[in-house]
Order: sequence, then structure tokens, then C-alpha cells
Amino acid sequence: MKVREIMTQPVTVVQEDATLEEVAQTMLDRGIGCVPVVDREGRLTGVIVESDFTGKERGFPFSAYVAPQLLGEWVTKEGVERIYEAARTRTAKEIMTSEPTTATEDEEVTELVVEMIDHNLHRIPVVRNGVPVGIVTRHDLLKLMAQEAE
Amino acid sequence: MKVREIMTQPVTVVQEDATLEEVAQTMLDRGIGCVPVVDREGRLTGVIVESDFTGKERGFPFSAYVAPQLLGEWVTKEGVERIYEAARTRTAKEIMTSEPTTATEDEEVTELVVEMIDHNLHRIPVVRNGVPVGIVTRHDLLKLMAQEAE
Repeated sequence: MKVREIMTQPVTVVQEDATLEEVAQTMLDRGIGCVPVVDREGRLTGVIVESDFTGKERGFPFSAYVAPQLLGEWVTKEGVERIYEAARTRTAKEIMTSEPTTATEDEEVTELVVEMIDHNLHRIPVVRNGVPVGIVTRHDLLKLMAQEAE
Repeated sequence: MKVREIMTQPVTVVQEDATLEEVAQTMLDRGIGCVPVVDREGRLTGVIVESDFTGKERGFPFSAYVAPQLLGEWVTKEGVERIYEAARTRTAKEIMTSEPTTATEDEEVTELVVEMIDHNLHRIPVVRNGVPVGIVTRHDLLKLMAQEAE
């Protein structure tokens, strides 16, 4: 089975200079957890995933203490609402992951699954001549279990 | 802000004796990446997430070699399609994570975010008297960025 048979298409993309508020609104409107970022020629330059918005555990410099960090700020008693408020005007390019792993439509699904597992990826954009034409998420693999792809 | 203001509701659940094919079809139909599993009284007993279907890196017994594993089987040249085919008749109870972390509707969103980050969780079911009434995913946190929750 080839990637084109299970990929989700068409794919929603955002421009590099979109604000994080616009990116979040796009992801909510489309119900997606990952959005490819493109330059003015429509070529893929990065991806933004939900977890870019939703925080990581980070170590404090020069200490063994770790604490939750969200969009570059420590989460304090003031709450996460203030952090989101402050970050709304930043742009896609500032938080995207550059040069993401990509796939092509003719690749075997098995190769893609192995790559997802090996590199702990959850979404892989599918490109044709550098332009996003689809995306494969772990969710799409459920089609192999549910016999929908036939 | 309270959990009830950003949680997704109502929540789709599956019975413990649903087959994996039924679970996968339910997740595809509803477009969800996590489904709470309930007993015959409707009380939460576990959760199934996409990644339960989509494989992990595992070490071979008595060796330093690791390889991709999917639903308990090593991924080989025969491909992932065969593994999915063979697993379709197994039940939700066999692969679910038991006793998952839960939240209540009155909890502060900030507490929930900190818990998600600290324990690297992506979805937390919200229960009332043991019965699932909603779910908060990392996706729901985008509402805080997009000003939708107001």
C-alpha cells in the first residue's frame, strides 16, 4: 500500500508570517493537530504541531530543578491564560520546526510507519516538488485497522 | 478558568468488549485520537489512544537491539497490513491503559496544563462520579490562544 492511499488531502497550510492566534484558530476550525508552514512560493519550510502550543518540562539553568514551560515562559501561579495572551502576536516562523521529515506519495506505508516509530513522529507532511500535497498522521493509520482504505 | 470551559463534550466512549476494528472505526468516524473505555455501568475503566494502534520502539529480549513493534508484533518485511488484519478481532480491554489520570469539571485549567506537561499526557478524561462527561486534549488548549473560550 502506498502513502497516497492513506494520506489526508488536501492539506491546510499557513504562511510563515501568520500570527500564533491565526494559527491556533486555523487548527481549531479545521480540527487538525499539525499544520505545514509555507513560504510565499507555497514551498514547505516548517511545521507547527499542537505540542508547540502546549508546553514541555524544562530544566532551570545551573540547577537540577525542572518545571513546566509554555511558549518559552515558566508556568507560574498567574496561570497559563496570561502566557497565551502575551504570545498571540508572535509569528508561525518563530515557533515552527524547520526542515521537518517529509514523505512522497509513492512511498510504501510500511516504510512510513517504521520511520514514525523510529523517530517518534506523529505527523509527516507529503510533498511534491517541495509543495505540501497531503499529510499522514498516526490517526490515518487507523484506516488500516478499520479496512476503510480498500 | 475551569476545566468545564475548555473541555470537549459530550464524549464518545466504547465498551470494554468492543473489537479493535470497532474502536478504530469509531475513532475515524468521530475524528478523535483518544476514546475512554467504560464498563457495563458506564464507569471509566481505561483509555485507548491512537498510539496504542501505531507502534513503539521496543528492545529484543536479551539483546541491545531495538526494533519497531506494533500491537505486540515486530514489524517485518511482510508489512504492517498483515499485523492490522490479525489484530482486528482483539478487544478494547486487551490494549487499553487501565486507571488513567482523570480530571474534574471544577479543576483550574492551569493545574491541568501543569499535570499534562509534568506527566507528558496528551488527553485527560473528565469524570463525574466515575462516569466520563468530557475530555480535555492538548488540542483544546488552542482555545486559550485563539480567544474562543471567552
